[in-house]
Amino acid sequence: MVYVTRKAHFSAAHRLFNPEFTDEQNEAVFDKCNNVHGHGHNYEIEVTVAGNPDPKTGYVIDLKKLSELIDVVILSKVDHKHLNFDVPELNGIIPTAENIALVFWSLLEPRITEGTLYKIRVAESDNNFAEYRGN
Amino acid sequence: MVYVTRKAHFSAAHRLFNPEFTDEQNEAVFDKCNNVHGHGHNYEIEVTVAGNPDPKTGYVIDLKKLSELIDVVILSKVDHKHLNFDVPELNGIIPTAENIALVFWSLLEPRITEGTLYKIRVAESDNNFAEYRGN
Amino acid sequence: MVYVTRKAHFSAAHRLFNPEFTDEQNEAVFDKCNNVHGHGHNYEIEVTVAGNPDPKTGYVIDLKKLSELIDVVILSKVDHKHLNFDVPELNGIIPTAENIALVFWSLLEPRITEGTLYKIRVAESDNNFAEYRGN
Amino acid sequence: MVYVTRKAHFSAAHRLFNPEFTDEQNEAVFDKCNNVHGHGHNYEIEVTVAGNPDPKTGYVIDLKKLSELIDVVILSKVDHKHLNFDVPELNGIIPTAENIALVFWSLLEPRITEGTLYKIRVAESDNNFAEYRGN
Amino acid sequence: MVYVTRKAHFSAAHRLFNPEFTDEQNEAVFDKCNNVHGHGHNYEIEVTVAGNPDPKTGYVIDLKKLSELIDVVILSKVDHKHLNFDVPELNGIIPTAENIALVFWSLLEPRITEGTLYKIRVAESDNNFAEYRGN
Amino acid sequence: MVYVTRKAHFSAAHRLFNPEFTDEQNEAVFDKCNNVHGHGHNYEIEVTVAGNPDPKTGYVIDLKKLSELIDVVILSKVDHKHLNFDVPELNGIIPTAENIALVFWSLLEPRITEGTLYKIRVAESDNNFAEYRGN
Repeated sequence: MVYVTRKAHFSAAHRLFNPEFTDEQNEAVFDKCNNVHGHGHNYEIEVTVAGNPDPKTGYVIDLKKLSELIDVVILSKVDHKHLNFDVPELNGIIPTAENIALVFWSLLEPRITEGTLYKIRVAESDNNFAEYRGN
Repeated sequence: MVYVTRKAHFSAAHRLFNPEFTDEQNEAVFDKCNNVHGHGHNYEIEVTVAGNPDPKTGYVIDLKKLSELIDVVILSKVDHKHLNFDVPELNGIIPTAENIALVFWSLLEPRITEGTLYKIRVAESDNNFAEYRGN
Repeated sequence: MVYVTRKAHFSAAHRLFNPEFTDEQNEAVFDKCNNVHGHGHNYEIEVTVAGNPDPKTGYVIDLKKLSELIDVVILSKVDHKHLNFDVPELNGIIPTAENIALVFWSLLEPRITEGTLYKIRVAESDNNFAEYRGN
Repeated sequence: MVYVTRKAHFSAAHRLFNPEFTDEQNEAVFDKCNNVHGHGHNYEIEVTVAGNPDPKTGYVIDLKKLSELIDVVILSKVDHKHLNFDVPELNGIIPTAENIALVFWSLLEPRITEGTLYKIRVAESDNNFAEYRGN
Repeated sequence: MVYVTRKAHFSAAHRLFNPEFTDEQNEAVFDKCNNVHGHGHNYEIEVTVAGNPDPKTGYVIDLKKLSELIDVVILSKVDHKHLNFDVPELNGIIPTAENIALVFWSLLEPRITEGTLYKIRVAESDNNFAEYRGN
Repeated sequence: MVYVTRKAHFSAAHRLFNPEFTDEQNEAVFDKCNNVHGHGHNYEIEVTVAGNPDPKTGYVIDLKKLSELIDVVILSKVDHKHLNFDVPELNGIIPTAENIALVFWSLLEPRITEGTLYKIRVAESDNNFAEYRGN
């Protein structure tokens, strides 16, 4: 089993708040991430696929194809968007890195046909990131 | 003359558009940066001060003090904010990296009392940045 | 299960030597890391917590709170210190990245009350790091 | 169990193609990586060894010694070389990151005598990498 | 005057040698960079344009357009190529970072119509780079 | 004129204090950098040489030779050392990044015989650095 990873990047705005919370609760829980007009990040995602290299190509999965799949399935929906308003798949979901990783997994996992999706990492910044491995 | 630099980071949303343009013009000029709800970045700024090291301290300027000044004069106004709505100093200004660098210079330059401000660099992403040197 | 990580940084001096070794043994084993007055590093640490995101917040653990905990429990004790002299928790311990990771785990693990501590990574430099996962 | 990692770098040319494919097949499968004269990368490798720190040294394995071993066993063979022509160990193997990781594992694993080899990561670029963990 | 910079990346093979040198001279001067089959790098280039931001757009030059220009004028010619064989513009030129920067300048400078080209930086690796500023 | 740069790294301990200051003054001026036993950094230096590429080699200066010169003239004296105790060239000098840059210039400038030394940058950390250009 070999694990191959492709990184990708997108820039987006988001705001953390729970509509069921009062303003005071949102402020207490989400602090500066609760700014009404939102703030933003250069997100970095890592998509890892596990499998055995095909003896004819040496690839677990062609990373150019994986990159194109990430473009279509993820980046086209979130790049240069506001995650709270512009992304139907995130409707009703607080856009933390944790939740974004879970949603990206659900979007990408059924589309991986060579190898199997092993891990998705979503980094909001150099210092903060979340990973999901499917269970 | 020695040049000392302090980096700092902030996360913010912005939208590029000119209110005097039609929607079509804004779309044509600013493309995906014109998304109505904005998008965002992890901005990195570099502030460079030029001067002669003080023989008693070895410092052109104490970078801890410069860091605190950057916090007060810049970061407190823009971090986790939407640059089009939340920052009075950017009112009426299209928040490109170029214009942000010019505004940050005007805010910071009068506050530098050891050495002289030499350069401000504002990076929107690893691949895009603007620098201003005061003229 | 989602894994969230917070990075932090500190700058410290250290010297590698075993007081039970002769000078020759210390020199042979630790080489330039055995310099009597010590040397130093910009250490980077990654703290990973595993758990299920709270449906009310989308957080496994609020990374701002985790960051504050790292500040109190770790950084306040080691940042801008000499690890051989200034840190009681490292008394009698050879301050390799391996041992530092083990000590940081023991300090931090009992303090994590949302999710469970999954991994601590301690990097001495871009090229050298150690990880501990609790067993 | 503690996991220690050493990074290393080498620069090499390679070409992806399968001699059993027609030119059209090679073009279809490997695209621009199939350029006849090859292209190249600054490769970054990470070698991770797992073990218990020796109480006398605090080391799982001395990373200076691991670095020297990586130099002898790997870098001396591939640095500033063309992977398709100059490296006997890669003869008959399509030099994808996946296959390079497998070959490096087979070269290095028998030479690790303190701790056990846990993982080898081979990155072709910031965005593409492969990992092998021995099974 | 504001200076805006766009980074771009390409992967290429090259070999350093002077056809007028003997093999011994090439070996003495270029050492491991003289490997007959070549070696390779992930090159990073920075293109800096100087000018006054247009008051209607806030741009010195639209970095998306600059990026597209870099794609057409530079990357399409060198990415995933062998610089000694596949690039007519480099014919007869020893492909050091210095010479590559000079050639890229000559290709790009006449095509910059907003602002003026100020600097081109060509990095072969994290540790080695060359800059040219037009004189 | 082309500018070529070589990066290098060293790890060292230092303490900032002025022996002519009282303890209170040192504490007030240098704060946590005044810790009695010192602290440390992974320093990164950039050495830039300006010149015209030699038509026979394409080099302003062979960066391998520059690297070896940096090893001999600088790194051998400071790597894995305590800058306040182990480096005669820094005797009596407060080891700020500014002063280190000035001393490294004085050591290296007379040894550069191809091209001329243009700039030395000394970074204590990702966020703090000093540059000297010879006047």
